[in-house]
Amino acid sequence: MEKADLLLLNAHVLTMDPEFRSFPEGAVAVRGGAILAVGPASELRRDIPAQETVDCRGAILMPALVNAHTHAAMALLRGLADDLRLDVWLLGYMMPVERQFVAPDFVQLGTRLACAELIRGGVGTLADMYYFEDEAASAIADAGLRAVCAQTVMKYPTPDSDSFEDGLERARAFLARWKDHPLIVPAVAAHAPYTCTEEILRACAALAVEFDAALHIHIAETAQEVETARREYGMPEVPYLRHLGVFAAKVIAAHGVHLDEGEMRTLKKAGAGIVHSPTSNLKLASGIAPVSKMLEIGLPVGIGTDGAASNNDLDMFEELRLAALLAKGISGNPVAVPARTALAMATRMGAQALHIGGRTGSLEPGKRADLLLLNLAAVHASPKFDRSPDSVYSRIVYSAKAGDVTDLMVDGNWLMRDRRLLSLPEADLLHQAEGMARRLDSFLALRESSVLSKLIAIETAAEEESFEIQVKVRLAENFPMLEQLTRPELEILYSRHFREYDTYFEFAAPDQGRLRYREDQYVGANGESENARYRLTLTGPIHEREFTGAVLLSRSRFLAPATHSLRFYREYFQPAREIEVAKERLRWHIRYRDTEFFVNYDHLTRPALPGRFLEVKARTWSRRDAEQKAGMIVEIVRLLGAEHSAAFREDYVELATRKE
Amino acid sequence: MEKADLLLLNAHVLTMDPEFRSFPEGAVAVRGGAILAVGPASELRRDIPAQETVDCRGAILMPALVNAHTHAAMALLRGLADDLRLDVWLLGYMMPVERQFVAPDFVQLGTRLACAELIRGGVGTLADMYYFEDEAASAIADAGLRAVCAQTVMKYPTPDSDSFEDGLERARAFLARWKDHPLIVPAVAAHAPYTCTEEILRACAALAVEFDAALHIHIAETAQEVETARREYGMPEVPYLRHLGVFAAKVIAAHGVHLDEGEMRTLKKAGAGIVHSPTSNLKLASGIAPVSKMLEIGLPVGIGTDGAASNNDLDMFEELRLAALLAKGISGNPVAVPARTALAMATRMGAQALHIGGRTGSLEPGKRADLLLLNLAAVHASPKFDRSPDSVYSRIVYSAKAGDVTDLMVDGNWLMRDRRLLSLPEADLLHQAEGMARRLDSFLALRESSVLSKLIAIETAAEEESFEIQVKVRLAENFPMLEQLTRPELEILYSRHFREYDTYFEFAAPDQGRLRYREDQYVGANGESENARYRLTLTGPIHEREFTGAVLLSRSRFLAPATHSLRFYREYFQPAREIEVAKERLRWHIRYRDTEFFVNYDHLTRPALPGRFLEVKARTWSRRDAEQKAGMIVEIVRLLGAEHSAAFREDYVELATRKE
Repeated sequence: MEKADLLLLNAHVLTMDPEFRSFPEGAVAVRGGAILAVGPASELRRDIPAQETVDCRGAILMPALVNAHTHAAMALLRGLADDLRLDVWLLGYMMPVERQFVAPDFVQLGTRLACAELIRGGVGTLADMYYFEDEAASAIADAGLRAVCAQTVMKYPTPDSDSFEDGLERARAFLARWKDHPLIVPAVAAHAPYTCTEEILRACAALAVEFDAALHIHIAETAQEVETARREYGMPEVPYLRHLGVFAAKVIAAHGVHLDEGEMRTLKKAGAGIVHSPTSNLKLASGIAPVSKMLEIGLPVGIGTDGAASNNDLDMFEELRLAALLAKGISGNPVAVPARTALAMATRMGAQALHIGGRTGSLEPGKRADLLLLNLAAVHASPKFDRSPDSVYSRIVYSAKAGDVTDLMVDGNWLMRDRRLLSLPEADLLHQAEGMARRLDSFLALRESSVLSKLIAIETAAEEESFEIQVKVRLAENFPMLEQLTRPELEILYSRHFREYDTYFEFAAPDQGRLRYREDQYVGANGESENARYRLTLTGPIHEREFTGAVLLSRSRFLAPATHSLRFYREYFQPAREIEVAKERLRWHIRYRDTEFFVNYDHLTRPALPGRFLEVKARTWSRRDAEQKAGMIVEIVRLLGAEHSAAFREDYVELATRKE
Repeated sequence: MEKADLLLLNAHVLTMDPEFRSFPEGAVAVRGGAILAVGPASELRRDIPAQETVDCRGAILMPALVNAHTHAAMALLRGLADDLRLDVWLLGYMMPVERQFVAPDFVQLGTRLACAELIRGGVGTLADMYYFEDEAASAIADAGLRAVCAQTVMKYPTPDSDSFEDGLERARAFLARWKDHPLIVPAVAAHAPYTCTEEILRACAALAVEFDAALHIHIAETAQEVETARREYGMPEVPYLRHLGVFAAKVIAAHGVHLDEGEMRTLKKAGAGIVHSPTSNLKLASGIAPVSKMLEIGLPVGIGTDGAASNNDLDMFEELRLAALLAKGISGNPVAVPARTALAMATRMGAQALHIGGRTGSLEPGKRADLLLLNLAAVHASPKFDRSPDSVYSRIVYSAKAGDVTDLMVDGNWLMRDRRLLSLPEADLLHQAEGMARRLDSFLALRESSVLSKLIAIETAAEEESFEIQVKVRLAENFPMLEQLTRPELEILYSRHFREYDTYFEFAAPDQGRLRYREDQYVGANGESENARYRLTLTGPIHEREFTGAVLLSRSRFLAPATHSLRFYREYFQPAREIEVAKERLRWHIRYRDTEFFVNYDHLTRPALPGRFLEVKARTWSRRDAEQKAGMIVEIVRLLGAEHSAAFREDYVELATRKE
């Protein structure tokens, strides 16, 4: 027999091979970073001479865990913003912060921080998907971990690429650079069907095929995205991807919470792997993936923590335990996903799902030496029963904790011995991470101190400044508005009928101004609403100036189309108070003395106020111009025959509030 | 200001009071085992002279956790049997093992082991429910923990009480003995509505009221028990309990997985507490409790680990994290049960649910000094964000682990300092627990080495031994059975028509014999099945003896009514193979030469075999008698005119197997 570099003796060896062979008094021989032999300690000791022997003192010796879906660098965003709805969390926090901070140094530091945690928790292999993946890969390789690293491509600008073409170029360079690395398996990430175009998906698949690399992609994470796919493509995501030829590549499908059985069979036929991330799916309220069905169909199902921002840690023990528990809880079947299966998902099956099953995931001769020692002598895992060979899996899955991992070896190298990290300066990383957290906190604190900056953070439109000059007059009963508008001095350019539904957010600090969310329904000739536009307007706290005759000048500090729902803005801005105002509005765009004005004839329906209101307005960029228009507004009111003395200074929202 | 015994300084103090007041640079003053003051460190240091000060070095200082539902001594059964269906787990493992092993020494040891784990995990108060609760209470008090200890009463014999009257007496004595203890709050446990009679429920409530004690009870844990209640009482469990007057007592309702909204409102009105045990509910596939709704209704919802046998640990950090995650995952609402609320459930609300909210659960002057220090400097909880005062709750709930608790104080006494247990000899407990585990393993290994002893373990019927003498003859086509039976030598005592559905379990080791599960349907005059009986028969592996003419002697080693489902037996016995046999049987009980025999005229329908079979049988306790009857059986076959040469030796199951 060959000589071993290392013989690990006196261990309870769990091979996690397809037969779940185990050796309660076992040993593992390592040579050249690979597993040379696994078996009873007495035999290996007898047959294999070794350079060095290690007494494992009865610990469990098993394959290092495989964290099959994560965004390692997001360890730096752990706990940044929690208990928020997905869109608020993602669009309101993660993406603005990523836009601002994610750069090579951030990815380096975050990935190294994640590696420290992963090593402590017994993870030997991770599947990473992020930006600046080059930095992530080098951080992981330096830490000594094995990884399938995927450079992200998507249709939106990302922290590392202004366009998807840049992203693709970056991915190509990344694949070329890392393709022969002993620890890093480069891959391409097409972020998700809904964040990519058809062109991107096809290009990513072609690139992956060209390099024989894996394609990592989020699939069917939320019910909403699946609904959108059905609506937009006429089919769910998996058939859509198949239609585009994406499965020509070795696919790693993350999540799969809302896959149907047919889609699972397609994935199986395509040789794809799938990754279950139960904590993240619960925390973001995406749902619970049908793991029992996936396993029944024969898909290799790995387990991943997802990024620390949605978990909030990288603890595979929590994750595999949850995988075992949830499958039971949702099926009413307490024998679903038994402990042994959950552990296989976190080891052998995880490696398979990543298309590196020949290299890691179980202790079998020829595979790389990726293994861990687990000491289950702690009170939370005591006593131990060993009547059944399955008891040990049950102890690991239902009782063990990440902190019970004492030692970790990857590719034959020790990365942790007796809870001491050997490849990373942990204290230094923690210190640097705190520094980064202070910067992030300051950025967000500043942003959140102002409604305006929170608004700018999420809307692509730039800040606009616009002066508005206006007068409001309460009209007499039966005021003949339409007749008055026929005055020859007034040229009517066009007229419109709107129903306007406004929601005003008011904030605890009055100097934050007031944010208006307006749904403007255009009413057609038949009196039916035809289409609507949604706009956000942030107005200053007070009217800035009053001209003669209650003509007011105000500054609309921000005006933009509202691309999210009212609910989104409510949760994102967290107003102290909301006020709703609705009205019917007839609007004329008129010309008077060569100057354009708007004339509104309004009827408040919520709160229902008696009477009608006349509003005459104009906008301008110039203060001087404003003064001039203020004079003309007074003249228009007079021309229309309204009682100028009935002019008032309040906004409708203020009338509404007084009414309450 | 009064002088303090102890001033805890330099801590991030979370009071967990109803306003969630916190002091990032805070302090707590303790005097006489109670909290004297909580506030900014600078103020307390200035205002309160102290005997001793402790520098908490920036740790989080918060109330000790409240584990509001557990069976502490079951720590000794952790991992004994997992991934089984509830009935197999409970009736096949837990209850037989408890019957055999649960005695005062077991409860002492198990409870002490649990206390060690609870202290390590930051639990200051537990609600325990078990047998020999006197022993549990003294173990808990010795360990220095606070507890609501409930002595169990139920209709079945228990390890400590042969009858419920004994159980009640034990509960009364227990209440009387502990009623003024500083740490132990005695209570009575009516185990569950379905394990108690109306009389027991009423008596337990009266006893609790008499002592002003809490009544701890499992409610609506499984959908099945709720269905049963609806069927048997015409209403779900809560109205049933209300109807019996149970809510006159201070109720602690464990689980509540399948409560409807009306029941929750009843509990709220009754001032009951409720305890959520998410891990156990998932693991036993009971479901997921509607916690958001409970909270909305205003019920105090605590969190409990349940016993370690169904969890498999007593880790409240895992439990509260799961409470926060599950509420989101099942509602699709990611803002459900935010971190702060989950932590309140594990502290203040838990104490309220146990009716000791005035004593513990938050850091407020006057409450007892039950607190913990949490060091979140580890990589899995880094970095920290402190922009929002809620961030700290998020770190604790989503990132912290039980192992991050460094110190625990209960009632003003340190039980753990810097991860060192002060009140329990941990190594010694672990050693003793291993000894107990060896005994349990041996007991179960012995039992499981034999199908017979597994059978005896679950069935109350004793082992029966019975010789059976029989002959089987294949009849000629159109054999006139009914006419032949009119022979004057044969007196017909009665006749019956059965449909018999047999399932045979065969085991890997042939010497285990064969276990038959038989459903015997009695067929009435109209040809309809009328009622059925279910029996289990374990037969020896071979026919023990063959008399002249293929008359066989066999031993039916065990015969008992089958009280569980076929599915139960399948999962419990785990046969290597199953064979199904069904037949139509006409049976006559006859007398011949003053001796009784059974004559069967059988037609196999599964597998469908052509022809009819004649079987003549008798039973006896005596071998000599058997020999004599064997001769008479040959005579009867002859009298009936059947071809004796067509006799055969196989059982129907063997014919069936050959057929396959």
